[in-house]
Amino acid sequence: MKTVKYTKLVLPLTYALIVACPVNAQGIAAEAIAPGQLNLMPVPSSVQTQTGRLPITAGFNVAVKNYADDRLRAGIARMLTRLAGRTVLTLPAGLATDEGTATLVVQCERAGDLIPSLSENESYSLEVTDKQARLVAPTVVGALHGLETFLQLLQGDRDGYYLPGIKIQGQPRFPWRGLLIDVGRHYEPMEVLKRNLDAMAAVKLNVFHWHLTEDQGFRVESKKLPKLHALGSDGLFYTQDQVREIIGYARDRGIRVMPEFDIPGHSTSWLVGYPEMGSAPGPFKVERGAGIFEPALDPTREQTYKFLETFLGEMASLFPDAYMHVGGDENEGKQWDRNPQIQVFMKEKGIKDNHALQAYFNQRILKILQKHGKKMIGWEEILHPDLPKDAVIHSWRGPASLAEAAKQGYNGILSAGYYIDLMFPASQHYLADPIPQGTTLTAEEAKHVLGGEATMWGEWVSPETIDSRIWPRTAAIAERLWSPQSVTDVDDMYRRLSVISRQLEELGLTHEKNYGMLLRRLAASENTGPLRTLTSIVEPVKQYRRYQMRPQTMLSPLTGLVDAARPDSEAARQFDANVDAFLADAPRFALYRPNIDHTLVEWRTAGLALSPMIDRSPALQEARPLANNLSDIAAAGQEAMSHLAAGDGATTQWRDAQLAKLDEAAKPKAALEFVVITSVRKLVIAAAELPQLKTTSPADWKKRITTLASPPRVK
Amino acid sequence: MKTVKYTKLVLPLTYALIVACPVNAQGIAAEAIAPGQLNLMPVPSSVQTQTGRLPITAGFNVAVKNYADDRLRAGIARMLTRLAGRTVLTLPAGLATDEGTATLVVQCERAGDLIPSLSENESYSLEVTDKQARLVAPTVVGALHGLETFLQLLQGDRDGYYLPGIKIQGQPRFPWRGLLIDVGRHYEPMEVLKRNLDAMAAVKLNVFHWHLTEDQGFRVESKKLPKLHALGSDGLFYTQDQVREIIGYARDRGIRVMPEFDIPGHSTSWLVGYPEMGSAPGPFKVERGAGIFEPALDPTREQTYKFLETFLGEMASLFPDAYMHVGGDENEGKQWDRNPQIQVFMKEKGIKDNHALQAYFNQRILKILQKHGKKMIGWEEILHPDLPKDAVIHSWRGPASLAEAAKQGYNGILSAGYYIDLMFPASQHYLADPIPQGTTLTAEEAKHVLGGEATMWGEWVSPETIDSRIWPRTAAIAERLWSPQSVTDVDDMYRRLSVISRQLEELGLTHEKNYGMLLRRLAASENTGPLRTLTSIVEPVKQYRRYQMRPQTMLSPLTGLVDAARPDSEAARQFDANVDAFLADAPRFALYRPNIDHTLVEWRTAGLALSPMIDRSPALQEARPLANNLSDIAAAGQEAMSHLAAGDGATTQWRDAQLAKLDEAAKPKAALEFVVITSVRKLVIAAAELPQLKTTSPADWKKRITTLASPPRVK
Repeated sequence: MKTVKYTKLVLPLTYALIVACPVNAQGIAAEAIAPGQLNLMPVPSSVQTQTGRLPITAGFNVAVKNYADDRLRAGIARMLTRLAGRTVLTLPAGLATDEGTATLVVQCERAGDLIPSLSENESYSLEVTDKQARLVAPTVVGALHGLETFLQLLQGDRDGYYLPGIKIQGQPRFPWRGLLIDVGRHYEPMEVLKRNLDAMAAVKLNVFHWHLTEDQGFRVESKKLPKLHALGSDGLFYTQDQVREIIGYARDRGIRVMPEFDIPGHSTSWLVGYPEMGSAPGPFKVERGAGIFEPALDPTREQTYKFLETFLGEMASLFPDAYMHVGGDENEGKQWDRNPQIQVFMKEKGIKDNHALQAYFNQRILKILQKHGKKMIGWEEILHPDLPKDAVIHSWRGPASLAEAAKQGYNGILSAGYYIDLMFPASQHYLADPIPQGTTLTAEEAKHVLGGEATMWGEWVSPETIDSRIWPRTAAIAERLWSPQSVTDVDDMYRRLSVISRQLEELGLTHEKNYGMLLRRLAASENTGPLRTLTSIVEPVKQYRRYQMRPQTMLSPLTGLVDAARPDSEAARQFDANVDAFLADAPRFALYRPNIDHTLVEWRTAGLALSPMIDRSPALQEARPLANNLSDIAAAGQEAMSHLAAGDGATTQWRDAQLAKLDEAAKPKAALEFVVITSVRKLVIAAAELPQLKTTSPADWKKRITTLASPPRVK
Repeated sequence: MKTVKYTKLVLPLTYALIVACPVNAQGIAAEAIAPGQLNLMPVPSSVQTQTGRLPITAGFNVAVKNYADDRLRAGIARMLTRLAGRTVLTLPAGLATDEGTATLVVQCERAGDLIPSLSENESYSLEVTDKQARLVAPTVVGALHGLETFLQLLQGDRDGYYLPGIKIQGQPRFPWRGLLIDVGRHYEPMEVLKRNLDAMAAVKLNVFHWHLTEDQGFRVESKKLPKLHALGSDGLFYTQDQVREIIGYARDRGIRVMPEFDIPGHSTSWLVGYPEMGSAPGPFKVERGAGIFEPALDPTREQTYKFLETFLGEMASLFPDAYMHVGGDENEGKQWDRNPQIQVFMKEKGIKDNHALQAYFNQRILKILQKHGKKMIGWEEILHPDLPKDAVIHSWRGPASLAEAAKQGYNGILSAGYYIDLMFPASQHYLADPIPQGTTLTAEEAKHVLGGEATMWGEWVSPETIDSRIWPRTAAIAERLWSPQSVTDVDDMYRRLSVISRQLEELGLTHEKNYGMLLRRLAASENTGPLRTLTSIVEPVKQYRRYQMRPQTMLSPLTGLVDAARPDSEAARQFDANVDAFLADAPRFALYRPNIDHTLVEWRTAGLALSPMIDRSPALQEARPLANNLSDIAAAGQEAMSHLAAGDGATTQWRDAQLAKLDEAAKPKAALEFVVITSVRKLVIAAAELPQLKTTSPADWKKRITTLASPPRVK
């Protein structure tokens, strides 16, 4: 996991140049709307607001100009459905015939690539006046992007729905903006993939990286080697018709579908049906655990390459994308070390170690892919002096390998920093840049950095929970990959993220609505209030600690509290902002005090109310210590607030007792951790530091509190 | 719409015989659980609780005995997934091999009918002791029903999950227990149908009546007459592969799939591709409106029967069910009246009116169906002296026609009383009985009444809202059709309905979770509190008034407040119960007073908070008068509560002013109506009647209030 150093908050150029304009009493923007009121995500490269507004009424219609095809018409129809859904207006069916009177004119020049490609022109421009909106794009893909921007511009007030006057120019910073979904560890039904493709299109992501094979499952039908899916998938695989359906669905939205067949490691499920391809004797069983496993294909036998030639050839026909991902990661080579035949082979060929053996394997695979017209991409382990220059490097360990590869002349994409399965907040992903500030790459070298991909690894996601692990955080990554590098205002990102998150629900995404459902099931009740309060300020533990703390298998239900809980707690972020404002208001301590008091009462009440809920629902037993912690946290906060309100400094004994309780509460339980500990620590320390206020400036005092309070002492 | 006279509340025989047993301090049922604590729905014909409890732990496993097949194994696997999901236990994969130690033994004798049929033996028995649960059923279908009962028995407390000791005998009162889904007016995607089939299975419904054709859409692929679906469906139809997929999915759950092809009326969409089959000259367009339309097939030409022979023959091969529904409803014959050729034909054949002409048509159709081995069923209009006795009558107007048909020797099923699209409460459907108390049918005649079907007509449902129109109310209908006639306790039905409703969410049903999503979209905000308060006590208008009040087309978005709102408000039911208990507590007026006060404050606050929400969201404009009404209702209630609390009788002037405000509030707006008006009227009238309490017994006084308050004067 890599984090880019946070440098400074810079508004995009055009944002900074424009002064916010007042809105008059009737709520009609007499002058241009302030860019800060816009909810565009990703932020376009250029935005200029202007006076006027375009009313959206039941007469809204769309005309096309110059070029139109089924893909464009379908995209317009989908936009109309969402526009109608949001406005509850019955819009005219079909396209307008008169360009002059149409509300929106979509002017497109050509279809764009038959198969979505890396070199597609994705740009568009959109101008909205009080008469008409005009979307101009060289390709249908650009027009589809513009239609998403159009929908994001919709606003409403007492006078109805409208779009503000605006001029937008949009094109991506990087041509490769992906989302990996690992369906190997947990299978995801077709509708899960489709709604996620819709969500990707909404935030202008353009590569669906379909991680189709894993130790725990082989998820694609092979007609030529049918034991692969028949024995390696528990019956949970995509037929070739379904694969084509997904490819078509993605193409309709301007999205490439790049398959991954992870070899030579991560291949247990392959070997269930074809043990003779393994580096150790079988039989093999579909893996149920999480982790790194030993089985690997045998790179020393010709039959392995014949087998892969057959399979990859079949897949090359099935998947039209120019790239094929062959994985290559996390092969520890233990089976190779123990296999005498492999050792003999290495000696004979002068292959000095397993990395070199894998490089040999990769060269063989590359030839197979080249024969079938595919470019190879693999995880960064494939980087080796012998690797041909047309292979693409997929960095998962950090940006250094990407830069290193770029310097050597390899194209690459970044996923380090975008591991959304690790439960870090959007802010962290947002500031991870494929080409960080201060890069040592030359402009020419930097061109080798094609973009990046968010990675939804599938150990702990089910069809019920996967959306909440992907969204809304991935929209922040989408912005990083599309928007100018200077767009780094985290607060503004979060403001827009919450709007986009809600809009994703229109597309059927379940990240919000399944939250309540999961809590209702856990509580076995409609009344989930106290549980919802608890869950709103805990997050699943970060990194790979969930499995360590709360081991499960791939066959375990993902319906526990850790599954209902979500990363990047908005409630905690809000509480912390309130506490900061409250402490900055020293020595008055009035700002946000009612909000903080109210929240602490809510926590206290919930802590008490949880106990009988847990009694009734054994599935919640593991939450009992969290419920007790919640009471402690609330009590500590309330006592601190009393001290601060009364201007009555607390003793160090009191402080230490509270901090000890908070340290205890900070320890993860049930693979969950409170994310308000630092905020409450601030209150506790502030209460004890109150006397210092007489001799320090409020600003210095506040700074001191923050330093003393952070980070929490217990991880 | 028919309602059965409410006779009396009778607990099922075995419920009544058993005395509730106390639960000891540890929460372990030392003696048998009280039946009133069970959440079974539908109620089985016989339930005997007994001492002991069967713990459900991570060691839970299932053995099969005597007969098992893929359908049974898949059913057990689905049950295990739900059990694991609810308990968050990782259960062993696969079946147990040792019957002696298995937690649950499923003993089945045979597969049951290859194609689910009316004569299937659906019975099962289930016994749970502290050692083991044993499910015995003659067929796999019976076993599947028993597995649903098993899951409904799951309970939890501090000691963990368990099933109470129990002996259950289950078999249906009626063999035909259906749900009609009209996909003609609005197409429903495959996953909507699948999750509804899952829900049907959960409440032991066994017929999916697939209403596939309507004026507004022809939804099934015909390979022989491809213009039917190609021109009649806007591209929204089920391929034959998809039809087979649904049939297989339903069969796996013991559910018949009976298609309906509605002829000779309701056939506009057929005529778009084949106008020459119509009774008036074309061209025809897919209908977008709601209502009854004129287009009808021409029953006088041989080409019509050749066409139908081709189509129905194709469908007879596609759908294996023994029955085929041919509609036959609401053909007003206007095109027939105006067609000279048809008039000549009628004269020549001595056919005296349109009803007779339709009978002629039906006889021709019947022969076609017989040729293809199908039994005919049609809406009650098909009843005619010439109708052969093996046709089945589907009553939609009332039970009288069903009884009439039964007396004439026709089999029949009831849908009158089960029109769930009309937005009546579950209580009303629940008490509609296919063979009402006091029937004049002999026992022999009563056998002709095969059961009933809930009908989900599709004018105003989308994939987002359809579940909330079907569930949970249809579970009450399912109980009516399965359980003994004596099971009529409405309060107990509602108690269990709310549990079952939550459990349906496990199967992916969206009736609960889409509510919040629709409100968020309307409010364009995460913060929907006040809107949720309003929506919790309004319901969509009943009968067919929605369209009259708020006309839309089939192409309109179904995302308005009326779409988010749901029938059968639980909040209103609860409020009314509280008001009744409060008034019955006269002259003390203490019982539930805090609850009522709290609720009224919530309404008052929401009424105020809604105004700025509506300002921001034009889609909510139509809710503005409702928001104002909400404030008025709350104010009237609060003033009444003040009078009652103070023992200070209100003046008649005050009362009349309040009642006038409530009358105004009672008028539907935005196709929504408040369902708390009568409750607040009670409070207002009680405040004015307070002086009478001195001279009347509290019971008589309460009775008088109720009489004066109900029904509201404005409909």
